[in-house]
Amino acid sequence: MVKNYKIELTEKPRGYHLIDSEISKNIPKWPDSGLLTLFIQHTSAAICINENADPTVREDFELIFNRIVPENIPGIKHTYEGPDDMPAHIKAAMIGSSIQVPIVNGRLSMGTWQGIYLCEFRNNGGRRRLIANIIS
Amino acid sequence: MVKNYKIELTEKPRGYHLIDSEISKNIPKWPDSGLLTLFIQHTSAAICINENADPTVREDFELIFNRIVPENIPGIKHTYEGPDDMPAHIKAAMIGSSIQVPIVNGRLSMGTWQGIYLCEFRNNGGRRRLIANIIS
Amino acid sequence: MVKNYKIELTEKPRGYHLIDSEISKNIPKWPDSGLLTLFIQHTSAAICINENADPTVREDFELIFNRIVPENIPGIKHTYEGPDDMPAHIKAAMIGSSIQVPIVNGRLSMGTWQGIYLCEFRNNGGRRRLIANIIS
Repeated sequence: MVKNYKIELTEKPRGYHLIDSEISKNIPKWPDSGLLTLFIQHTSAAICINENADPTVREDFELIFNRIVPENIPGIKHTYEGPDDMPAHIKAAMIGSSIQVPIVNGRLSMGTWQGIYLCEFRNNGGRRRLIANIIS
Repeated sequence: MVKNYKIELTEKPRGYHLIDSEISKNIPKWPDSGLLTLFIQHTSAAICINENADPTVREDFELIFNRIVPENIPGIKHTYEGPDDMPAHIKAAMIGSSIQVPIVNGRLSMGTWQGIYLCEFRNNGGRRRLIANIIS
Repeated sequence: MVKNYKIELTEKPRGYHLIDSEISKNIPKWPDSGLLTLFIQHTSAAICINENADPTVREDFELIFNRIVPENIPGIKHTYEGPDDMPAHIKAAMIGSSIQVPIVNGRLSMGTWQGIYLCEFRNNGGRRRLIANIIS
């Protein structure tokens, strides 16, 4: 059985945000055994799974990914939406548009320190739409 | 129900290419509700989802990923297929070997600006083989 | 049908390791047609698919990813577990927490040169736990 749930997140500032609870409250029921695929319908934001406890990890994400993909790289052409536009597309390709988490015994089988990140790469990204796809 | 379709893409030059229509014409029928997994059977090319409208985005991808993973990094050993060989493997690991897209109401639930990229990292990569896996 | 198998890998040193046989021996039976999702329950290790033949590829992975995400970046805050801690989280987000491989004719439909990598980013990561999720 396949079910799809549309989720619209609240608007978030540029940076990395834990969205576990915002996802869970949009899923009425988890199957006993299955697979969650979470897909983001945008090309300048991404989702990933990473450390859920220390907020400085998410601050370091912002610092380090900005260093790896800096703004204003000489020679780039897609610049008309501002210097945060093209780096956002590159970071989205690096981190990815979807995550998968097995569902075991009626819950997401994440490790103790894992949480779901919304990675907002734009200065003003607005509300982001996801699809939660559950196969059981 | 699980269905697998083998897809062989036309040969493409090094760079980033929209392949939505090439994929669609190889899928005889989309289910009403499901999940598409698109998997590439190579380690020096990748697939991702990114901006589908402005071709300069894809040119900037080439420029920026070449900057992040340059050729001829001192100390690398796997060089006998040329300077584009090892960077191709690294980019493939960064961007990934598969994408997932939920199928909603009989179509891929991508956002307005999303398209599927074949990322060809080799100077002469040849024809690339994919598997389209559809669960419904 | 969805099945989940818990897999605990043997402890591995920092670096990139082929784990195909370690995975296979934990899957009692492959379906004729399906999808494998392999999910890692940690945020400082990752899994990906890459070149399976030349061990120098995996040595070059260590060299190149350390160059892209160096230790001791000025300004980072999450440093109390050592200089390998924060770069491990970044690499995990880049490479990813899961892979998907279609199952065709009772076997993983990987290409000739593809193998499954455990990417161990910590100096002493310990044993790593995975979930193998098989949909058929």
